[in-house]
Amino acid sequence: MASIVNKHYVFFFFSLLILHTFSTNVHSKTLDKNKPCKRFVLYYHDILFNGTNTANATSAAATNSTNLGNFNFGKIVVFDDPMTKDDHLLSPPVARAQGFYFYDMKDEFNAWFSYTLIFNSTEHKGTINIMGADMIAEETRDLSVVGGTGDFFMTRGIATFRGETIQGFSYFRLRMDIKLYECY
Amino acid sequence: MASIVNKHYVFFFFSLLILHTFSTNVHSKTLDKNKPCKRFVLYYHDILFNGTNTANATSAAATNSTNLGNFNFGKIVVFDDPMTKDDHLLSPPVARAQGFYFYDMKDEFNAWFSYTLIFNSTEHKGTINIMGADMIAEETRDLSVVGGTGDFFMTRGIATFRGETIQGFSYFRLRMDIKLYECY
Amino acid sequence: MASIVNKHYVFFFFSLLILHTFSTNVHSKTLDKNKPCKRFVLYYHDILFNGTNTANATSAAATNSTNLGNFNFGKIVVFDDPMTKDDHLLSPPVARAQGFYFYDMKDEFNAWFSYTLIFNSTEHKGTINIMGADMIAEETRDLSVVGGTGDFFMTRGIATFRGETIQGFSYFRLRMDIKLYECY
Repeated sequence: MASIVNKHYVFFFFSLLILHTFSTNVHSKTLDKNKPCKRFVLYYHDILFNGTNTANATSAAATNSTNLGNFNFGKIVVFDDPMTKDDHLLSPPVARAQGFYFYDMKDEFNAWFSYTLIFNSTEHKGTINIMGADMIAEETRDLSVVGGTGDFFMTRGIATFRGETIQGFSYFRLRMDIKLYECY
Repeated sequence: MASIVNKHYVFFFFSLLILHTFSTNVHSKTLDKNKPCKRFVLYYHDILFNGTNTANATSAAATNSTNLGNFNFGKIVVFDDPMTKDDHLLSPPVARAQGFYFYDMKDEFNAWFSYTLIFNSTEHKGTINIMGADMIAEETRDLSVVGGTGDFFMTRGIATFRGETIQGFSYFRLRMDIKLYECY
Repeated sequence: MASIVNKHYVFFFFSLLILHTFSTNVHSKTLDKNKPCKRFVLYYHDILFNGTNTANATSAAATNSTNLGNFNFGKIVVFDDPMTKDDHLLSPPVARAQGFYFYDMKDEFNAWFSYTLIFNSTEHKGTINIMGADMIAEETRDLSVVGGTGDFFMTRGIATFRGETIQGFSYFRLRMDIKLYECY
């Protein structure tokens, strides 16, 4: 008899141990940066309006640069840019990026973004909202995915930018590596 | 004796099964879109400053439209708008909406919002922060509730917009259906 | 025999009770406002560009004020401001704050912020993204920490602002008490 009861206690405390492990997970969740629940890479193409390229332009400066430095400080650009699966501007867009960026350093080019990725295809319907600093001088930089809707209901994560091409002020392309860590 | 031990194992594995279920919940939480922990519908009223209506205006254009298309592309509007429980402009406001929107499409009216709902009444004190695309052409569109303070401490959720009335550029009203899925 | 089985059931239901407690935590997590997982106080210094102070200025107005009221309604300011550990402007910055604010009330000074804290030191590397209303008339006001990267991977929390000094439109300082409630 006694041995059964003892075994019983062993099981019981083993259960408690397991429970404790899970409860710890609840209060300080362990997210593995290398294991997003969803991930995809998209390319962002920005063609700035120059006054005459209405047919091609996908963004336009809402404000002029200030005179603080020579790197467009204070220039705000509103965009409705195509997102493609590969790096070709003319590939069929799989999403739109709508939002804005502005330049914010006086001694180098540096930007800040806030925007929405809008998916409306058979593959995905919904939006992903992103904001953060685009430190252009860094090889890659991380912005925050702060929310989502539709297929991306309540998501959060990281968007890693990498500059790919800059053609003066007429065109630039960013690789955006979207890693979602909360999927519902 | 044997039968007790067997029962014991049954209980033990049953417990493990339950534990496994909970641990799964921890890593990919199941949120039911139809069961927000808090929900309320408010109406947003925007009266644009036209240069003379200072007494009534609740918003003003910080920038002019660009020449990219004919749909106000690049026009940024800053607002401090009343939120009411019903759709009457003159109903007592239960919150303020402070933030901005801008127009961002060259071939139709389309906007992007980022703002804070500020509650300061006996019923609620605190703020809710919202951002996302307002695809005006859609009957309803979802934006992200990305955070909250006070009574809405750390909340997240979805804000569903529906256009109600547009009177040229002088007044428009949006129905905002705020659904919170994380309540603390 | 019966008593062992009974004890067994007691243990079993006690286990279920504990499990239920944890499962409740999962679905409506209890966060204690007084127990952030990380907290630090930093000071934000803003020196507005006046057309001639390029060497010292850290922010610049991207738009002029509108004529709606006399409190800068619609004035958008882009900044790249130093953050220090104490309230001295000339203390070594431990982070940069990059983003923007604008004034948004017609009858008093009131602002709205969205920005990124950028840490790049031996102590911290990463970013924290913040947005919300800065109700200047309130002694303190809470904004939302909506995301983070690097050392602040996926964080969320509250940033409490307190105005410290305002020297006309040339300089102001804010105390920012950053409380993080989700740490990974």
